[in-house]
Amino acid sequence: MTADDATDSTDSADGTDGVCRPPAEAPASPPPPRPTAQRVRDTRELLDREIDCWVATADPATGAPHLVPLSFDWDGTSLLLATGERSIAGRGLASGAGVRIGLGATRDVVMVDGLVEAVPTAVLDPAEADRFAQRTGFDPRETSGSYLFFRVVPSRIQAWREENELRGRDVMLEGRWITTTD
Amino acid sequence: MTADDATDSTDSADGTDGVCRPPAEAPASPPPPRPTAQRVRDTRELLDREIDCWVATADPATGAPHLVPLSFDWDGTSLLLATGERSIAGRGLASGAGVRIGLGATRDVVMVDGLVEAVPTAVLDPAEADRFAQRTGFDPRETSGSYLFFRVVPSRIQAWREENELRGRDVMLEGRWITTTD
Repeated sequence: MTADDATDSTDSADGTDGVCRPPAEAPASPPPPRPTAQRVRDTRELLDREIDCWVATADPATGAPHLVPLSFDWDGTSLLLATGERSIAGRGLASGAGVRIGLGATRDVVMVDGLVEAVPTAVLDPAEADRFAQRTGFDPRETSGSYLFFRVVPSRIQAWREENELRGRDVMLEGRWITTTD
Repeated sequence: MTADDATDSTDSADGTDGVCRPPAEAPASPPPPRPTAQRVRDTRELLDREIDCWVATADPATGAPHLVPLSFDWDGTSLLLATGERSIAGRGLASGAGVRIGLGATRDVVMVDGLVEAVPTAVLDPAEADRFAQRTGFDPRETSGSYLFFRVVPSRIQAWREENELRGRDVMLEGRWITTTD
């Protein structure tokens, strides 16, 4: 890591150290960093393809961090999640404290910060619920428990593989895909 | 999901819905649930083998959830992490709000809740720092930034694959591996 990285104005407040390092067995030189346009394409493909994600919330009762894998659907604009309304994840998603979602592998991550809207099962467009069930193999409408859907509209998305991709890892800011040519 | 699952006394407060569902293409019946002893073995093997984990913290400035992949070492008792002391993850780890860590795949997860101790780089036993560097390929002592090590002592560990493993997913409680025979 260079000092340049640490002061790169495109870096978020978490600095440049939130990254997994290559294991000792890995090649000394990772591939060159992908240009932004490629990262945007890879990110959208991952959102289209992936079924599960890591959902980090804050427990509104204690402020403690929570994390759980959940299935999701992606309609090109928002992620749709479902979980029990009384679960820690459900209460955290409903709390207004926001959510941070990780997709993909630890050395090829997509991180999503987003705004959350709770959508009661009975209110969701049945076509959307059908699509969720088709993709995830799980239909929250058929459960006996009290499930809620949650729509997550990304405000920022980041994508990086190894340390050399920390610079320029923002692929969406303020809800807009970055279209700047590298 | 059965009502029994939802009221299983071994379930944590997050209920039984914090789980990824099998995709529609998956076999209708997952393998039978592993007995606790097998889950403990699998969990310890994963902690020995894995290099990266998903680290969820709460941003002490805002209470917002944070999530980032970080490399770790495991000495059989605690996880050792390292990140910038001024990063969101670093400040969250130092805040006393706790940490929740996910390892493995979303359909074969190990979830660790733990207590965190910040360990300044200069204070950590050099042998431990060497081991961290060997395992992760990254030596925080060699960086120009202000890195801290963080020792995470697990208080609770859970392990599950699919929905049929939610029951009995605790493999450690109050810092002790569960030894009950199934």
